[in-house]
Amino acid sequence: MIHQLISQIKKLEAPVVVGLDPMLGFIPESIQKRSFAEYGETLTGAADAIWEFNRQIVDAICDLIPAVKPQIAMYEQFGVEGVKIYQRTVDYCHEKGLLVIGDVKRGDIGSTSAAYAAGHLGHVKVGSQSFSAFREDFATVNPYFGTDGIRPFVDVCKEEKKGLFILVKTSNPSSGEFQDRLIDGRPLYEWVGEKVAAWGEDHMGDTYSYIGAVVGATYPEMGKVLRKIMPKTYILVPGYGAQGASAKELKPYFNEDGLGAIVNSSRGIIAAYKQEKYRKFGPEHFAEASRQAVLDMLTDIRSIF
Amino acid sequence: MIHQLISQIKKLEAPVVVGLDPMLGFIPESIQKRSFAEYGETLTGAADAIWEFNRQIVDAICDLIPAVKPQIAMYEQFGVEGVKIYQRTVDYCHEKGLLVIGDVKRGDIGSTSAAYAAGHLGHVKVGSQSFSAFREDFATVNPYFGTDGIRPFVDVCKEEKKGLFILVKTSNPSSGEFQDRLIDGRPLYEWVGEKVAAWGEDHMGDTYSYIGAVVGATYPEMGKVLRKIMPKTYILVPGYGAQGASAKELKPYFNEDGLGAIVNSSRGIIAAYKQEKYRKFGPEHFAEASRQAVLDMLTDIRSIF
Repeated sequence: MIHQLISQIKKLEAPVVVGLDPMLGFIPESIQKRSFAEYGETLTGAADAIWEFNRQIVDAICDLIPAVKPQIAMYEQFGVEGVKIYQRTVDYCHEKGLLVIGDVKRGDIGSTSAAYAAGHLGHVKVGSQSFSAFREDFATVNPYFGTDGIRPFVDVCKEEKKGLFILVKTSNPSSGEFQDRLIDGRPLYEWVGEKVAAWGEDHMGDTYSYIGAVVGATYPEMGKVLRKIMPKTYILVPGYGAQGASAKELKPYFNEDGLGAIVNSSRGIIAAYKQEKYRKFGPEHFAEASRQAVLDMLTDIRSIF
Repeated sequence: MIHQLISQIKKLEAPVVVGLDPMLGFIPESIQKRSFAEYGETLTGAADAIWEFNRQIVDAICDLIPAVKPQIAMYEQFGVEGVKIYQRTVDYCHEKGLLVIGDVKRGDIGSTSAAYAAGHLGHVKVGSQSFSAFREDFATVNPYFGTDGIRPFVDVCKEEKKGLFILVKTSNPSSGEFQDRLIDGRPLYEWVGEKVAAWGEDHMGDTYSYIGAVVGATYPEMGKVLRKIMPKTYILVPGYGAQGASAKELKPYFNEDGLGAIVNSSRGIIAAYKQEKYRKFGPEHFAEASRQAVLDMLTDIRSIF
């Protein structure tokens, strides 16, 4: 999958992933009304509105980018009906030729991580049969448990030729509370970054590992250091756009080959029609606004090379 | 909920929670066969077998303990069908008078944590309606993001009078890789413990906070220190039984009032019939074996006071 991701990034000149993190507030009223008319103001109705919103956005942008990153929390909040739509979104994105990074941030003790890995990236055995449940290509993972919480994910990735992005330095304001604390003179995120690089050695592609890292765009100085600590690690970079980082701050996340990072924007793309800049599209053309926002993001990101 | 948890623990003399973490390998063949006969060797068949297994265990033990802790990974691995059964298990346990600790280990940036909190502990708005999706009473949460990743969970807990157990020191062998690293002379888990105590100040019950901590039974010396750092924090203690810790190692996790900790056993209870000690029950009486294992665990735990 890391090969496929890199070859699509090169082909499209697009080191970009769009976060499919739909909140009901992002969804134009006309879509909500239609779904509520069919399913009522219910969890099913909400899930249907999300599905319709996602589908139109994916149709509008799928030729421009290599991958999407659905945030499972935004689906999980609607319970089983939401999870169904998460699944449906993953499958639909695959049909449209997109790679899918499941933003699930799972992580637990070994036997439990093994179950998460099987469910999201691998297979689960049922009697004599074997099934792949959620079918993402990559998943985000939390490192707090250490190696034996990560190992089962890496093992499944090796078997299935899939990949991970492990949290190293997150994009949120209080990420430094624990992640920046100094241990033997170096911040925790550097120690985590070193581990991610080591875990990644065990599942290498040609030049980059299948095991990537998450480093927020909001901390470019740290990004620079982490780039050096993890030279063969693909970095998933959240925090561009709505969270505040601009393109020029992203340069340190890339290697000299122009690869090594993929920048995420969620709200900035999927709710573009709500921004002043794209208001002319109007709510009924929200998907076209999203397409324009992707094109603008690509121009912006390409300007740094 | 912390009041209810404490009053049930007192009434039943049972500072014990049973982890409902069913692997298919734990489920007697007769149950699997019946489910596969009805639904085939499918994800639905697997989910049905898990449901039947859970139901019989819950029926057999619900009068002995205050709470259960379903591990969502064990359901999620079967995809949407598994998640349905997770939901059904939560609801059934409530019907049987049990409190439910959703072992979900979620945690993300603020807006995403808010969605997880709404879905698992709170309500989500759909048009003019409001729904509670997964309906657990407590959830486990990962602290790696710091305060703004935790805050939305605490906010929802305050509104709904629900609670959390935040990971501090986990029970797995490699938990020390990051958690034990020294920061200004003290291990990371102590810093996290201090934060948990501080976050908990904001949502107090009478003597204990609604915001609890997870500290593995496998590290009793650390448990002792953390007990002091977090005097008003309820500690959820995994790692008893199958993971290796015995009752006498659990004493430091309790306060002098005999409260302040709740000990989890999963496999040791739900797969009891597979142990030499309970083999006489046979697979067809697995639920009675689980009941006996709970009774034995209660005797063991009570012996430390």
